Amino acid sequence: MKTKFLKDQIILKNSFLCLGLDSDINKIPKHLLSEPDPLFSFNKLLLDSLNKLIVAVKVNTAFYEENGSKGWETLEKTISYINKTYPNLFTIADAKRGDIGNTSDKYAKAFFKHMEFDSITVSPYMGNDSIEPFLNYNEKYTILLALTSNEGANDFQLSDNSQKDLFKKVLLKSKRWKNSKNLMYVVGATKASFLKDIRSIVPNSFLLIPGVGIQGGNLKDTYQNGVNHEIGILVNSSRSIIYAGDGIDFVDKSFKAAKELQNQMKKLLND
Amino acid sequence: MKTKFLKDQIILKNSFLCLGLDSDINKIPKHLLSEPDPLFSFNKLLLDSLNKLIVAVKVNTAFYEENGSKGWETLEKTISYINKTYPNLFTIADAKRGDIGNTSDKYAKAFFKHMEFDSITVSPYMGNDSIEPFLNYNEKYTILLALTSNEGANDFQLSDNSQKDLFKKVLLKSKRWKNSKNLMYVVGATKASFLKDIRSIVPNSFLLIPGVGIQGGNLKDTYQNGVNHEIGILVNSSRSIIYAGDGIDFVDKSFKAAKELQNQMKKLLND
Repeated sequence: MKTKFLKDQIILKNSFLCLGLDSDINKIPKHLLSEPDPLFSFNKLLLDSLNKLIVAVKVNTAFYEENGSKGWETLEKTISYINKTYPNLFTIADAKRGDIGNTSDKYAKAFFKHMEFDSITVSPYMGNDSIEPFLNYNEKYTILLALTSNEGANDFQLSDNSQKDLFKKVLLKSKRWKNSKNLMYVVGATKASFLKDIRSIVPNSFLLIPGVGIQGGNLKDTYQNGVNHEIGILVNSSRSIIYAGDGIDFVDKSFKAAKELQNQMKKLLND
Repeated sequence: MKTKFLKDQIILKNSFLCLGLDSDINKIPKHLLSEPDPLFSFNKLLLDSLNKLIVAVKVNTAFYEENGSKGWETLEKTISYINKTYPNLFTIADAKRGDIGNTSDKYAKAFFKHMEFDSITVSPYMGNDSIEPFLNYNEKYTILLALTSNEGANDFQLSDNSQKDLFKKVLLKSKRWKNSKNLMYVVGATKASFLKDIRSIVPNSFLLIPGVGIQGGNLKDTYQNGVNHEIGILVNSSRSIIYAGDGIDFVDKSFKAAKELQNQMKKLLND
């Protein structure tokens, strides 16, 4: 899926909401535990209810890997179900991968070919040749960690507190890489004050913005500092939507939480 | 497995060799492709032959993920076989993971509890709280990327060419983290000239050193600059051992390649 189409979906749905499927076997409603694949049932019920409110789905690989190869089966079933049933949703493997070239090539195959995700999150630490194998897929997007939403972002990404901050180097260098048109960036909503700076460096790239909700980020600030000519932002919410309820009616509670965010987005998009 | 035991194994076996199982379905001998699980058969044959020459095994998760959940089954079978058959081998999940705390916690569970690896490689980009969930396992080791063997190491890790180099910040900050005694570091053998500097910052930590062999690193320089009171280095070799041959006799060729490295190590350890 190309970003032109993604922008059209955002306008059509009045939403730049990404649903984060951090689906945790210890947190999903108890009545689902008797299903043959509880996490898949949980994901399917949420997708079937929320698909019109969202434009993207982010699947967090860690929550599946916790259950080993069985968890990977759930991951495969989930992405396959989305691609078949909701082909207009932009799909993100939140995997934070990255390794030397011949190894990143295998990760790219796993997520882009074997599972047919539209995009994957990757870590920039190992530099250009660790990202290139992902960027070589022209119909796919590689979402590079820039400035993350967690406390630890201060350790290295922001450690200089200056123009030489690591996250700025990551933005500046990566935009000169081959196929950099296939890049998007992760910028935490808890760092909304940095979004203007970031936009001045990468005016045209889509940003994946986690951290609204439980992590404390503010939607309005995020939108106003992050929006570009193509809208250019996807705001992810995981826990505050998918765990809005834990009973038989959990889907209704999740729908309500997502609808509330989408209403705010509609207002921002149309103001 | 604690490093005291690992050091004893190194002395006993006259080897600080780590076997890298970057087992690629496209590169293993053709006659194995008729096996029910070709990659597992490949791994098992290599381990059964080489186990006395090595002290550690590094399994590169990308090469298994390429095959999806089936690949993860092979990964599970491989680590389970090693733990059952060769409990004295130090096991490394070369996974380069790292995410916000609640997510890293899931990765730690996947690799330390579900699969019972002794250690995992992780990326420092997201800082302390992304690594802490791994460090909380006191019987396990968390191997932090510091200075990697690839060209892209120049992009960010070495970008300052100074005392402020990112990899030095990673070493300096991480050694102050809670449970830092459970840290090891990845340092590429192609960067042997940096090893003295690195040793001055982390004199007591084990270093996992890839890049000897196909990537061009020199074993003697690596040893002389990296060795500490506990030996303190594991040198990994993957492709130059496991793909030394591609016929019926591939195990013999791999044995020979590993034996050659181990002989050099024996000489270095006893000089």
